[in-house]
Amino acid sequence: MYEKWYKAEHKDPDGIKKAVYGLPEIFRDRIKSSSLVSNPGCYPTGTILGLTPLLKNKIIFSDDIIVDSKSGISGAGKEPSEITHYCERNENIEAYKVGSHRHTPEINHILTKVSSLNVSLLFTPHLTPMNRGILNTIYAKLKSGTKINQIKDAFHETYCNEPFIRIRQNQLPRVMDVVNTNFCDIAFNIVENRVIVISCIDNLIKGAAGQAVQNMNIMLGFNETVGLL
Amino acid sequence: MYEKWYKAEHKDPDGIKKAVYGLPEIFRDRIKSSSLVSNPGCYPTGTILGLTPLLKNKIIFSDDIIVDSKSGISGAGKEPSEITHYCERNENIEAYKVGSHRHTPEINHILTKVSSLNVSLLFTPHLTPMNRGILNTIYAKLKSGTKINQIKDAFHETYCNEPFIRIRQNQLPRVMDVVNTNFCDIAFNIVENRVIVISCIDNLIKGAAGQAVQNMNIMLGFNETVGLL
Amino acid sequence: MYEKWYKAEHKDPDGIKKAVYGLPEIFRDRIKSSSLVSNPGCYPTGTILGLTPLLKNKIIFSDDIIVDSKSGISGAGKEPSEITHYCERNENIEAYKVGSHRHTPEINHILTKVSSLNVSLLFTPHLTPMNRGILNTIYAKLKSGTKINQIKDAFHETYCNEPFIRIRQNQLPRVMDVVNTNFCDIAFNIVENRVIVISCIDNLIKGAAGQAVQNMNIMLGFNETVGLL
Amino acid sequence: MYEKWYKAEHKDPDGIKKAVYGLPEIFRDRIKSSSLVSNPGCYPTGTILGLTPLLKNKIIFSDDIIVDSKSGISGAGKEPSEITHYCERNENIEAYKVGSHRHTPEINHILTKVSSLNVSLLFTPHLTPMNRGILNTIYAKLKSGTKINQIKDAFHETYCNEPFIRIRQNQLPRVMDVVNTNFCDIAFNIVENRVIVISCIDNLIKGAAGQAVQNMNIMLGFNETVGLL
Repeated sequence: MYEKWYKAEHKDPDGIKKAVYGLPEIFRDRIKSSSLVSNPGCYPTGTILGLTPLLKNKIIFSDDIIVDSKSGISGAGKEPSEITHYCERNENIEAYKVGSHRHTPEINHILTKVSSLNVSLLFTPHLTPMNRGILNTIYAKLKSGTKINQIKDAFHETYCNEPFIRIRQNQLPRVMDVVNTNFCDIAFNIVENRVIVISCIDNLIKGAAGQAVQNMNIMLGFNETVGLL
Repeated sequence: MYEKWYKAEHKDPDGIKKAVYGLPEIFRDRIKSSSLVSNPGCYPTGTILGLTPLLKNKIIFSDDIIVDSKSGISGAGKEPSEITHYCERNENIEAYKVGSHRHTPEINHILTKVSSLNVSLLFTPHLTPMNRGILNTIYAKLKSGTKINQIKDAFHETYCNEPFIRIRQNQLPRVMDVVNTNFCDIAFNIVENRVIVISCIDNLIKGAAGQAVQNMNIMLGFNETVGLL
Repeated sequence: MYEKWYKAEHKDPDGIKKAVYGLPEIFRDRIKSSSLVSNPGCYPTGTILGLTPLLKNKIIFSDDIIVDSKSGISGAGKEPSEITHYCERNENIEAYKVGSHRHTPEINHILTKVSSLNVSLLFTPHLTPMNRGILNTIYAKLKSGTKINQIKDAFHETYCNEPFIRIRQNQLPRVMDVVNTNFCDIAFNIVENRVIVISCIDNLIKGAAGQAVQNMNIMLGFNETVGLL
Repeated sequence: MYEKWYKAEHKDPDGIKKAVYGLPEIFRDRIKSSSLVSNPGCYPTGTILGLTPLLKNKIIFSDDIIVDSKSGISGAGKEPSEITHYCERNENIEAYKVGSHRHTPEINHILTKVSSLNVSLLFTPHLTPMNRGILNTIYAKLKSGTKINQIKDAFHETYCNEPFIRIRQNQLPRVMDVVNTNFCDIAFNIVENRVIVISCIDNLIKGAAGQAVQNMNIMLGFNETVGLL
């Protein structure tokens, strides 16, 4: 699967078997006892955090999920190219790799593991004119008769003790609220037979280096929030 | 319905009955003979143009459509407010009025009329840091066995003579390609059992004043593109 | 001088001798009869237009002029590089080539020719987070006793018939007023013993391709504003 | 003087006499023993820090100084208005209050006190499309025969022990380097008979709340950098 999506042989096939997926909110116990952690991608972090409570609790169908993501430009990397040129990105939005972004199998793989359901979602990333931040708008179909309180309970149970997850009630998640922090802000709402989950992170912190520090803190037995709050 | 969504009585209930919906690509003949045209909203223009070929040709299900829209800030109006303050919008993206934006019934009403199907879509607008432009990412479920060529044919038949619709093949629609023009750029792709349509306009031109000029040209018997190309 | 500033031999030393400097407001007659026009740089255009009335009329000292310019990023060229990377330019301003930008000798040379004074100004360009546009803030020392009306008269005489110069009275020049146009907006004010001139152009139009079209129109005997208004 | 520039009576005329000007790099000793500190404005902070070493050491003329400042939009305040509307500020730069900004007398007053010279500078602020940050480009005339080493020495002596002043040698100050910090970055260069000083701060930190915390730390006998590094 790695070769299919990354068009290259993996350089450490042994390591990949031992590595634990470094999403502390879901794999904290395994991270604690691991000596090799693979830090999640920026899109998977927010998407998996937004969907885990719903899938684990069988509140939504696992085969009818759409993720529409809006990313700042640092997500496209440091390498100068036409894609990262200021005048190509400023005053512009565009989708890319529709249905074929290499973060898709990473998301499906982890969510399948988390839920024991066969998860296959549709993922569409967009480049938007900001330095940093990702806002994910997630659309999922509810099992018949689901009430908003079941969703609230699912999120509450999953995240009530998490230092870096904030469930927002009166304010939808905004990029400006999470930039320069390790927080993942999440809100949800029912519209007819669907739940819409919005999750939001700083792609460079919770979506990259901040989460790596969080994982390191766990692995080394430090307080998990050291250096991050 | 107007009162429900706009929280106000309509000021010209007689007029509204006579008014023709001013989307030339769909109602040109009726606009030609009308003396009162109601100019479409910015979100409805791109959404209706993106979905009409698929609904008219019964290629997609009418009850399983999601529209995720990204709008520049001029869409929020000229009135100064906390919402339009530079520091609230710059380096920020947020969704608003999820499932409750007042353009939703306008879109459903017209698409229902166009297709003779009961269309009820889920519409989520987002404010994004650009002066102008709207990119709509539209997700719809395909009837079983649909091939990409059927979709191509549907768009081609509907728009091949349209001066302001550009079907993009090798480049997904981008805000920077339509800004300051009356064009609506459209592209589509199949991913598994869904079609993803991306449509893009300048909300101030094709989504407002440009379309009004286009309608005026039609009503007065001018060449439709006068002042717009 | 070319070799000193551009670190390369000029490729057409014969041509450079015959070429007329393509600033129509100043060299229109010579452009009309020329077969080779060198199109001015973006910084020189706004700076020379802002200073010519004052130097020609000996209202300011020619050896005490400061030009502080703020340019959009398209001025840095299309080539992708660290300098043009979105994340390097967005939410950032910096000066560059302080006192050593290669447009300096171009400006001094033309202003010396225009005024028959030995002009040597201090030029400091800055990169600012916009796609296009240049705002020049010009500081010059007034000859003792100069009144604002002398300055008004100088600008009026020089530009009253110019189709692309707008002298602003109640609104200081703004990048947003000239973007996508061939206009150069100019305002001026006296503060104690100095005059401050602000000139503003779109670096890609009046500072590049638009001015080239204007020159072409003059050379070919067309109406000068064809294609530009 | 307060009434002339602020068009209002000062509300605490007794307090203003006792207040110490809260620029720690210059008035640290007096702040330490004061019970009332007036926190400097955002423009004065960077300007005064950039000029103090030169004026105190009589390296420049005190009557021939130009300050050209570029400010992010948070400098215009939180109040929604046409001036702070996203679409007025994005893709736009303009000067305002040329020679008449109310920070001018504050700057002149403090620099006069610091140098015992009669300082009267020309100050031109500009609004630029960033959330935060101020870059000041300062032009001053050198006393005849001044060498770059005298300038280096003056800055070194004045600031070598300052925790929040960074003298940049190989990189001109950039807004992106100081945003979200309490640093003031400074660089200088001689061009002919002038010195150009560039100073750069975050207007909301070193130009406002950060400096207030720095002052509080000094007044209360805390380590000066607590909460700021």
